[in-house]
Amino acid sequence: MPEPVILFAAKTERWEVYEAPLRAALAEAGLGGATLTTEAAPEEVDYVVYAPNSGLSDFTPFTRLKAVLNLWAGVEDVTGNKTLKVPLARMVDGGLTEGMVEWVTGHVLRHHLRIDMYLHGQDGVWRAGTAPPLARDRTVAVLGLGELGSACARMLAALNFRVLGWSRSPKEIAGVECLHGAAGLDAALGRAEIVVLLLPKTPATENTLNARTLALLPRGAVIINPGRGPLIDDEALLAALDAGRVGHATLDVFRTEPLPPEHPYWAHPNVTVTPHIASETRAASAARVIVENIRRGEAGEPFLHLVDRVAGY
Amino acid sequence: MPEPVILFAAKTERWEVYEAPLRAALAEAGLGGATLTTEAAPEEVDYVVYAPNSGLSDFTPFTRLKAVLNLWAGVEDVTGNKTLKVPLARMVDGGLTEGMVEWVTGHVLRHHLRIDMYLHGQDGVWRAGTAPPLARDRTVAVLGLGELGSACARMLAALNFRVLGWSRSPKEIAGVECLHGAAGLDAALGRAEIVVLLLPKTPATENTLNARTLALLPRGAVIINPGRGPLIDDEALLAALDAGRVGHATLDVFRTEPLPPEHPYWAHPNVTVTPHIASETRAASAARVIVENIRRGEAGEPFLHLVDRVAGY
Repeated sequence: MPEPVILFAAKTERWEVYEAPLRAALAEAGLGGATLTTEAAPEEVDYVVYAPNSGLSDFTPFTRLKAVLNLWAGVEDVTGNKTLKVPLARMVDGGLTEGMVEWVTGHVLRHHLRIDMYLHGQDGVWRAGTAPPLARDRTVAVLGLGELGSACARMLAALNFRVLGWSRSPKEIAGVECLHGAAGLDAALGRAEIVVLLLPKTPATENTLNARTLALLPRGAVIINPGRGPLIDDEALLAALDAGRVGHATLDVFRTEPLPPEHPYWAHPNVTVTPHIASETRAASAARVIVENIRRGEAGEPFLHLVDRVAGY
Repeated sequence: MPEPVILFAAKTERWEVYEAPLRAALAEAGLGGATLTTEAAPEEVDYVVYAPNSGLSDFTPFTRLKAVLNLWAGVEDVTGNKTLKVPLARMVDGGLTEGMVEWVTGHVLRHHLRIDMYLHGQDGVWRAGTAPPLARDRTVAVLGLGELGSACARMLAALNFRVLGWSRSPKEIAGVECLHGAAGLDAALGRAEIVVLLLPKTPATENTLNARTLALLPRGAVIINPGRGPLIDDEALLAALDAGRVGHATLDVFRTEPLPPEHPYWAHPNVTVTPHIASETRAASAARVIVENIRRGEAGEPFLHLVDRVAGY
């Protein structure tokens, strides 16, 4: 069997980061003879390692393509591509998940423990008796129970939070009360003191938090969004913050990134902006994930992390 | 067998908090006939539920006493009491441990994720590419592996931190690299990016962090002290902070509490003071812990959570 040809289709700076880890992972998997390249005749390519911002959007000439292996967890910019007729796998990187669990757990605990209040109160006044309730008396809703959301929900449950998980279709996670569907979303929001958004960006998830759903939250609830900017109707959130209905929003993702300096989120006293750092893919572990799918493709085994292109994630 | 007489020896406001939970726990344990009181002839008392600041310090007249059940986790103010010749049990409250795990995990993640930097950087400047390392590349030392320290070490290990645990005598905790003795302490400090102090207050632990041991830390290390104020030589810590050797100190306990408004910790830009709120005993669960020991005493079973009065904890 000829060795596979792998086209790396992403921006040049990504190639600089990924070439060595990919070659190392290929060698490790016994695929050292594969061709890994940034330029190849389309009809000779077996696999495309793909970043949706690479410029490649017409897969029609790739006549012997076996799979497209996305470098990113997000696939919203490729699922709609009608020229893509082979399996599409998303990035499910252990490092990405770990980083997200750390960021989400850290910010949930920050709000749970009211750490900001203490940071702002370094004024010599000893405010005794202000210990927060235990996590077992605090309800956190995690919207989205994919790889990232379910890992975060499990860690929050390990810390004894009352965790509500919500997803479009039914799921089960030990220690997490899982709700689903439109009625389940309203029920989860009605009880959530802290809401974590880890839904994919699809037409169905846009503006999941809007004027109607924000009004369901208990007064003073906290929003944490490390998922996707368009999950939130920004005008509605700002209005809810101004009305004190939402107590705080910690936002890592935005409809426009970088978030423009004049955006009201920056100046709002009850908004924390972070620059899309909640988690990022780490090259070494991501390269192993991609090569494992190439190994599977060559061995005739089923691919991992396939995208359901009708659902869009 | 006559029903036991239980003297509640603590400040009046504690009685208001504890009376109902203790009576409920006694009834639950089949000890509803016991006498629970704040005043009794010493020679009639079987058990003292005890707060070291109660005013009671001479146990000599308590001729039929079976045990002293401390309301607090800290026992340093009672272990030296020569008139106390019966078993002494400390408070080991699940709620206390849970609250401590939450506080320690929250502040370790706060420093790991550099949350303060983002809170102070709400200025419209998008600082991309500043994601922190993964927890698996961050070393945290937990000094003290009692109930609280070992629970914190386990949770930090569950978050993938590289956890070094240190205690005077050897211990084993799954997922934690346990060191002990004087050489082990120096080794742990030499590697620790974040140090959590959960040692008991004994003559041997006073000034565990001093000029010599602070100098062992990697430059920029963070100190978190929810344990006891005297574990730290305050002058040495302030000098290490001023020299930039220690990056930050988050301190919940102090030699003098409330911390006086003029204390330099309040104004130091790299110190966070919290007012002894890292954890507190919750009355309902604490009452059950105390009553379980009374039940054991009445049934002739060994007491739980006994203090080693020679070691002092």
